[in-house]
Amino acid sequence: MTIGFIGLGKMGSNLARNMMEHGYKVIGLDTDRRIELCHEGESLPVYQNADDFLAALGSGKKIVWMMLPSGEITEQMVQLLTNRLSAGDVLVDGGNSNFKDSIRRAKGCEAIGISYLDCGTSGGMHGAKTGACYMVGGNYDAFRVIEPVLRDTSVDRGYLYTGISGTGHFIKMIHNGIEYGMMQAIAEGLAIIEKSDFNISLSDVTQVWSHGSVIRGWLMELAHGALAEDETLSSYQGIVGASGEGKWTVETALGLEVPIPVISASLMMRNMSQGNGEYSAKVLSMLRDGFGGHMEPT
Amino acid sequence: MTIGFIGLGKMGSNLARNMMEHGYKVIGLDTDRRIELCHEGESLPVYQNADDFLAALGSGKKIVWMMLPSGEITEQMVQLLTNRLSAGDVLVDGGNSNFKDSIRRAKGCEAIGISYLDCGTSGGMHGAKTGACYMVGGNYDAFRVIEPVLRDTSVDRGYLYTGISGTGHFIKMIHNGIEYGMMQAIAEGLAIIEKSDFNISLSDVTQVWSHGSVIRGWLMELAHGALAEDETLSSYQGIVGASGEGKWTVETALGLEVPIPVISASLMMRNMSQGNGEYSAKVLSMLRDGFGGHMEPT
Repeated sequence: MTIGFIGLGKMGSNLARNMMEHGYKVIGLDTDRRIELCHEGESLPVYQNADDFLAALGSGKKIVWMMLPSGEITEQMVQLLTNRLSAGDVLVDGGNSNFKDSIRRAKGCEAIGISYLDCGTSGGMHGAKTGACYMVGGNYDAFRVIEPVLRDTSVDRGYLYTGISGTGHFIKMIHNGIEYGMMQAIAEGLAIIEKSDFNISLSDVTQVWSHGSVIRGWLMELAHGALAEDETLSSYQGIVGASGEGKWTVETALGLEVPIPVISASLMMRNMSQGNGEYSAKVLSMLRDGFGGHMEPT
Repeated sequence: MTIGFIGLGKMGSNLARNMMEHGYKVIGLDTDRRIELCHEGESLPVYQNADDFLAALGSGKKIVWMMLPSGEITEQMVQLLTNRLSAGDVLVDGGNSNFKDSIRRAKGCEAIGISYLDCGTSGGMHGAKTGACYMVGGNYDAFRVIEPVLRDTSVDRGYLYTGISGTGHFIKMIHNGIEYGMMQAIAEGLAIIEKSDFNISLSDVTQVWSHGSVIRGWLMELAHGALAEDETLSSYQGIVGASGEGKWTVETALGLEVPIPVISASLMMRNMSQGNGEYSAKVLSMLRDGFGGHMEPT
């Protein structure tokens, strides 16, 4: 099976290598950069031009797997491909697209006979390389076409057909919302220990919590790995990004009227870390000054 | 080594059996109930009277391991034991005591030569039985005395000497605070899926998330196990208890002025589930009615 792989960034390059490792022929497209990818002496042909890339995939039914930043970049690539792919081809979006976009794109593709699969991919760079976790929505027959790839490049029981178009990215969105909350809970707990008068190694604590505790899991293991290197986390400024799924989770919950204070607060703490809480803090200072003459630093 | 074990409830009985399984002689005390505990034909003598229990431990240096509900029950047992134990004995509190109580109790014991160890125990009933996770504070020499038991009854790398008295229960308190936040994040995410129009099996979702995803861990595995049995969770009313550590985590953070919105909200959602939000909701209805004539159900 030959896979046309688009987007060879941090996740994509690891996933493409993982596929090659499992015997798939992979042909790459990266319109941004001239890159070379090798795996055990075998080099992955990477085209910069979409037409060359598609021609290299041959004349039969094609499988094209995108691993691109969500939003405009994915949108443009889908438009470019739907003008060039044919009925019977399968187009996989392995990125973190908004599930509503995926539903719309799947409809557009379906109208011209192209199967569009929305494939949430978890496990980070490490998982992409050694065994990912997939949540896949869309046409079931198309899912069956790519199922061998999913099985081979995921961990044991690490892929799921979630149902109709959009469900794969919907479940991945919720996964990331939960991830925001779990990360913030870990961050808050460690921050209390760090600020306390006790002199306790956070590296040791996260290590023991990774072995037999109720809160053990991969996030705790990641925390231990980094804290073992540097407990002060001096290489980070504490300015935290958010690439969309947390916000969409909150928006979805608002629509369904499901209360999710923890996931919402996790997102807002990230927004706060970007300095976006500065004006509201100024308002508080202004009001404290107004009623009580409390002078804050100016 | 003989261990005097006090409190043979859900955690305690599993832990006592775990110790017996590893070749330790265990003598039990449960003042509440006449119970019998057996392990592979070997029966654990369980006394109902503290004096009989202590006499059975013999005349040498004693190790007494408490696994009792925190608060008054532990307090009374510590008072009873400090009047009966001797210099050189080791008293372990394996429960979820407030770390400030543990510091005070350790001081009281130290004054009469008894070593008091505060031992946070994680891993749930399953961990107690098959391999727990321990965080132990107090006198280091006393820790070394019980270290073989900790090593044998925990998972690999599943125990840590955390430092001076109080640190074991302090770290366990933070562990539980993080647990509140992680649980609430998982709960919120699953609640969105449950309320959505998509027909997606939460059993399948929590299973795939347990295999290779970023949010994999024991809590997700527990969720999968229960959801595989019953996705409606019909055996639960949704009234959630809180045994203290979450509240102490928030109190500690308030004292240290560390912002922990997620752990705080997790605790308050539990309080809310107990019906404690009813009056504030009535106030909202009253005010909506007052300014806008919005009639709510009466």
